[in-house]
Amino acid sequence: MNQIQKDNQEPVDVVIMAAGKGTRMKSSLPKVLHRLGGRALVAHVIDTAADIGARHVVVVTGHGATDVEAALEGAVAGMTPQFARQVPQLGTGHAVQQAAPLLPDDGTVLVLSGDVPLISGDTLRALVAESAGRRLALLTIEVDDPKGYGRIVRVQGQQDAEGEVQSIVEEKDATEAQRAIREIYSGVMAVPARLLKTWLARLDNKNAQGEYYLTDIVGFAVVDGVPVVAHRTDDALQVAGVNSPAQLAALERAHQLRQAHALMAQGVRLADPARFDLRGTLVCESDVEIDVNCVFEGAVSLGADVRIGANCVIANARIETGAVIHPFTHIDGEQAGVTVGAGALVGPFARLRPGARLGAEVHIGNFVEVKNSTLAAGAKANHLAYLGDATVGQRVNYGAGSITANYDGANKHRTIIGDDVHVGSNCVLVAPITIGAGGTIGGGSTITKSTEPGALTISRAKQASYADWQRPQKAPKS
Amino acid sequence: MNQIQKDNQEPVDVVIMAAGKGTRMKSSLPKVLHRLGGRALVAHVIDTAADIGARHVVVVTGHGATDVEAALEGAVAGMTPQFARQVPQLGTGHAVQQAAPLLPDDGTVLVLSGDVPLISGDTLRALVAESAGRRLALLTIEVDDPKGYGRIVRVQGQQDAEGEVQSIVEEKDATEAQRAIREIYSGVMAVPARLLKTWLARLDNKNAQGEYYLTDIVGFAVVDGVPVVAHRTDDALQVAGVNSPAQLAALERAHQLRQAHALMAQGVRLADPARFDLRGTLVCESDVEIDVNCVFEGAVSLGADVRIGANCVIANARIETGAVIHPFTHIDGEQAGVTVGAGALVGPFARLRPGARLGAEVHIGNFVEVKNSTLAAGAKANHLAYLGDATVGQRVNYGAGSITANYDGANKHRTIIGDDVHVGSNCVLVAPITIGAGGTIGGGSTITKSTEPGALTISRAKQASYADWQRPQKAPKS
Amino acid sequence: MNQIQKDNQEPVDVVIMAAGKGTRMKSSLPKVLHRLGGRALVAHVIDTAADIGARHVVVVTGHGATDVEAALEGAVAGMTPQFARQVPQLGTGHAVQQAAPLLPDDGTVLVLSGDVPLISGDTLRALVAESAGRRLALLTIEVDDPKGYGRIVRVQGQQDAEGEVQSIVEEKDATEAQRAIREIYSGVMAVPARLLKTWLARLDNKNAQGEYYLTDIVGFAVVDGVPVVAHRTDDALQVAGVNSPAQLAALERAHQLRQAHALMAQGVRLADPARFDLRGTLVCESDVEIDVNCVFEGAVSLGADVRIGANCVIANARIETGAVIHPFTHIDGEQAGVTVGAGALVGPFARLRPGARLGAEVHIGNFVEVKNSTLAAGAKANHLAYLGDATVGQRVNYGAGSITANYDGANKHRTIIGDDVHVGSNCVLVAPITIGAGGTIGGGSTITKSTEPGALTISRAKQASYADWQRPQKAPKS
Repeated sequence: MNQIQKDNQEPVDVVIMAAGKGTRMKSSLPKVLHRLGGRALVAHVIDTAADIGARHVVVVTGHGATDVEAALEGAVAGMTPQFARQVPQLGTGHAVQQAAPLLPDDGTVLVLSGDVPLISGDTLRALVAESAGRRLALLTIEVDDPKGYGRIVRVQGQQDAEGEVQSIVEEKDATEAQRAIREIYSGVMAVPARLLKTWLARLDNKNAQGEYYLTDIVGFAVVDGVPVVAHRTDDALQVAGVNSPAQLAALERAHQLRQAHALMAQGVRLADPARFDLRGTLVCESDVEIDVNCVFEGAVSLGADVRIGANCVIANARIETGAVIHPFTHIDGEQAGVTVGAGALVGPFARLRPGARLGAEVHIGNFVEVKNSTLAAGAKANHLAYLGDATVGQRVNYGAGSITANYDGANKHRTIIGDDVHVGSNCVLVAPITIGAGGTIGGGSTITKSTEPGALTISRAKQASYADWQRPQKAPKS
Repeated sequence: MNQIQKDNQEPVDVVIMAAGKGTRMKSSLPKVLHRLGGRALVAHVIDTAADIGARHVVVVTGHGATDVEAALEGAVAGMTPQFARQVPQLGTGHAVQQAAPLLPDDGTVLVLSGDVPLISGDTLRALVAESAGRRLALLTIEVDDPKGYGRIVRVQGQQDAEGEVQSIVEEKDATEAQRAIREIYSGVMAVPARLLKTWLARLDNKNAQGEYYLTDIVGFAVVDGVPVVAHRTDDALQVAGVNSPAQLAALERAHQLRQAHALMAQGVRLADPARFDLRGTLVCESDVEIDVNCVFEGAVSLGADVRIGANCVIANARIETGAVIHPFTHIDGEQAGVTVGAGALVGPFARLRPGARLGAEVHIGNFVEVKNSTLAAGAKANHLAYLGDATVGQRVNYGAGSITANYDGANKHRTIIGDDVHVGSNCVLVAPITIGAGGTIGGGSTITKSTEPGALTISRAKQASYADWQRPQKAPKS
Repeated sequence: MNQIQKDNQEPVDVVIMAAGKGTRMKSSLPKVLHRLGGRALVAHVIDTAADIGARHVVVVTGHGATDVEAALEGAVAGMTPQFARQVPQLGTGHAVQQAAPLLPDDGTVLVLSGDVPLISGDTLRALVAESAGRRLALLTIEVDDPKGYGRIVRVQGQQDAEGEVQSIVEEKDATEAQRAIREIYSGVMAVPARLLKTWLARLDNKNAQGEYYLTDIVGFAVVDGVPVVAHRTDDALQVAGVNSPAQLAALERAHQLRQAHALMAQGVRLADPARFDLRGTLVCESDVEIDVNCVFEGAVSLGADVRIGANCVIANARIETGAVIHPFTHIDGEQAGVTVGAGALVGPFARLRPGARLGAEVHIGNFVEVKNSTLAAGAKANHLAYLGDATVGQRVNYGAGSITANYDGANKHRTIIGDDVHVGSNCVLVAPITIGAGGTIGGGSTITKSTEPGALTISRAKQASYADWQRPQKAPKS
């Protein structure tokens, strides 16, 4: 009876419980919007629903409903969740009752929790297969310390992974023998919609809490002769919920470690999987090396043989084959993105901002900032410099301390630097301006007018010396 | 008999053993001055003594006594420790003998170790209650491997947590049955002063080491019919001593993890509790987020919704509501402090030094240093700049590469920049100087005289070009 | 029979298996060239061979043979490995057959694996002693889960650490009783060369894989009446092999933790042993403190009382007594080295490059880069500066934003700054140039001609103001 029926073809509709406040988070942010791996807890659950091809996704909102709904609009590509408001919150059964009008009768309903972010598509598919269009299937897990959780009581003499479930017994109602049961209910179930709806209608709140409990439908199923089956996972992370900052941090670390191991299995070399953070997607070609304590955010892709030094923060960027990112480099492309060309060298202490486009073999050195600028192949800015809104030609050498003055206090203007230009140290290029190809700008110059190709241009006062000059003396302390 | 008497009201006097050399530390620093969480080991113990309202605190010093005493002068607010020198060091009993003249007869004496920093006030209060003004109370712990430690032998037939103690038996003197005892003495005791003094007088050094052992008083108590009770802790960290750099590091990590969990319990969100260091105090309002690998020192407080990016080092600072500190930011207010206004953005790669006062919505960007300067609301210094001894008005835009020349080689002078001033790139403002409100300083200018409000001021040589200039050629290798 | 014979004086010749591809590494780099602690796996093994005084070291290469051989040329001081090519790779026995012609008959042969990097010299010496010039000695280990490994079957009734070995039984050939054996073969053996050679000649490849297995010689030894003994290690790290990025990372962390503990045992104080990386050698004098998340590479030595702040990356440098390296400092001396003088202060956000030589009490502050430059005692460059190819005198104050323009686009030139010079802010010193001792350079000056001692030199345009200047207006969005 417990056999997985892989060819189950009923449509799946997902209900996600996301109305809770999460008091123990001690936060004004609704619990399901707290982030794991840089993404809202509930968005992970919607991702998984999309992954298994769910037909409808209904998110039951309550506390902070407006914020939750706004945050989830368009959060998952190709998946538009619907929302059902649960106000006030009268229990898990009541929550699903709010979603019921949005659930067609012909589907299998998967009930998920918005604060249980790491449930996998494979597990859900298996659970749906167990439900098989005619059973109530509960996701369960065996734990060392079941205290406080609802125990899975199976039909007598069948207390093994194959036996049908008779009831879920809460801690306070459990006999001593039942308390010894270590298999608990995870909060996740799959159930045919038509059955679910008849049972939801029969729920009552005649209990100490005055709430409508979804788990009461197990009793209705038994009464109605509908088989109740349990699908056991042995992966505690998949059913781990987030109720406190400590639990969130623990799940974050477990999630990060899994991501690290998935990348290593692809051949990525991580110096320390415990000091690696990925909040988004990281696509790596072969022979990528990532040193300790790096953080990746958004969409990052790394070409073959790319090396990332220690302590880098890299977001929304494409780094081409063989580029080397030295330690303490900060890259964030935001919407515009950043590209680093093949064989480029960046850092240490470099910052690439949105729209930085570095060609092949470009060098960006220490204390250099690049924003919304294109540097053609072989260009170099090795020391203490700012390049903003600039178009820089091939092989340009941009001197230490030089600045593109791209902002006149009101508008931003472009700086064009031709191929093979040599800009001296501590120059200011006042945009809009063009430095002709092959030109040279003398050190210390402030350049306000465009220059001809091949010319040397300087703006420099005459050097004057005053012999035997007396320095100011240290003032006496008053 | 083991009942805790919460209403014990006798004054408590504390003796802290701090005379040891700590040979295994392999350091010229006296052992008790090594730091845990940024604070000397023995200072933690004095803090706890202050916390339980100790009347007198006597620190027994020996190795490095002068250094230890100097380091502890005024180390704890409202608590002035006294010192008793132990020269030479002739054992634990001898140490307490040196302290005895400073201990009034009417108190309970708590004997603590200067190298056991994490003992808690609650544990000490419970131990004092066990002593109850008439008993010798020993703090004990059960360990997996008691080898080398003094075993707690209780009166026959009472080898449980309720039985009276008969003796502390050292490893070398223990029978096989005694060696199997896993309850050991922690080095901490509470004892009425009047009893302690009579027993101290009876100690001798007739043993292999020729030392006076404090634990010998257990025998005297038994002989005198004074009950000896054991108070068991189950928290190994509280009685863990520091004898080597490895033990210090292990205790440091345990201490940091506890601090991290205490903050998380308050609602602080830590991306990785194992990569968090606090050496001082950190006060957080609601919804604070702290990314990986941050270090906090001194007194730091963070307003609501503050976000601290990865790899920040922050000391002695107040950061107001909603401010965002980007990765790789270094803030150290030292004595003067640093304040970051509400909604301010700081970093990445920014450094705020003592006396930096940033108003609301101020932006301090990459490679910018601010020292002893006030920036009013909305001021910005986004790139490669130095602001020292400056007063900066509202909405000022301080250009990339610009420097306040506050030091003439002998004295420091102030720079005043009025509201709405726009300072161009790579300027030098030679202090003392005032830039009038609404003024503009052209890029590349060195400004030595104060300017009028609303004026454009520049100091710039004429731009000149030389066509077809021949660059220097690469010298042949000689 | 198992007695260790310490006076075994036969020469030892080492064969290192290094021909494998390491498919699971998913890398184009041959497996044995992957790095642990910054050094190729196989180089660690050669180091250990050198450590035990091996006479010959023969590395059997195959996959990527050219790369492996090139990488190992001169990799270990005083040890020149020989290479034997194994093409194609027909098993472990076949590998040793290729090495055999290079192994004299009078020695003991140690067979090691190029992907098992942490084997210790002590273990190898003990194994050779077991071999004693007349036995086949196998290095074994007891593991919790022996599945998939060759089990050590001892002569009946002697299944303890003293019994002679009868065979190594592979998983698939093992009886149920044999499968329960938890002692496995490590891949390391010591065997007299003359015996080894006779057995190598008798190997065949009549098995499922069609390979020549080295372990078949155990059977020949038993037949020949040569004792086969096992030397058990209890240190799993020493026999741990690297087959995947995850295994490499795990071994890297274990290796780093061991290095950290070795340094702590010498008295070095590490804030977090789990966040410490050493890829090379680190020599520390007394009372060195190293904060969290530091990386050391190449040859680094730290004088007494040196403090290294959080998040530093330090390579190829000597740091003298009492110097303080603040957080976020990047030092890499490469071939030329870097020296930091006694009591110097460096960082935060400082970068010292090859040839930086800082005298005593030198200060290098934030956003400052020093390359191929000597700074005499007491010189300071505290803010946003570049010193390249410079010789800086004592007590020089080098202003914020100042740059040595050492590169004319073709050649590099030197800047000489005399003692007690004061260079103002945002200056450019165009090399080759000499600033005479005691001179002053006014802020914002570009200096192209050498200056006299004691002179004040400036290059500065006149300051001009234009009242009531109208700033550019924000352009309307088009």
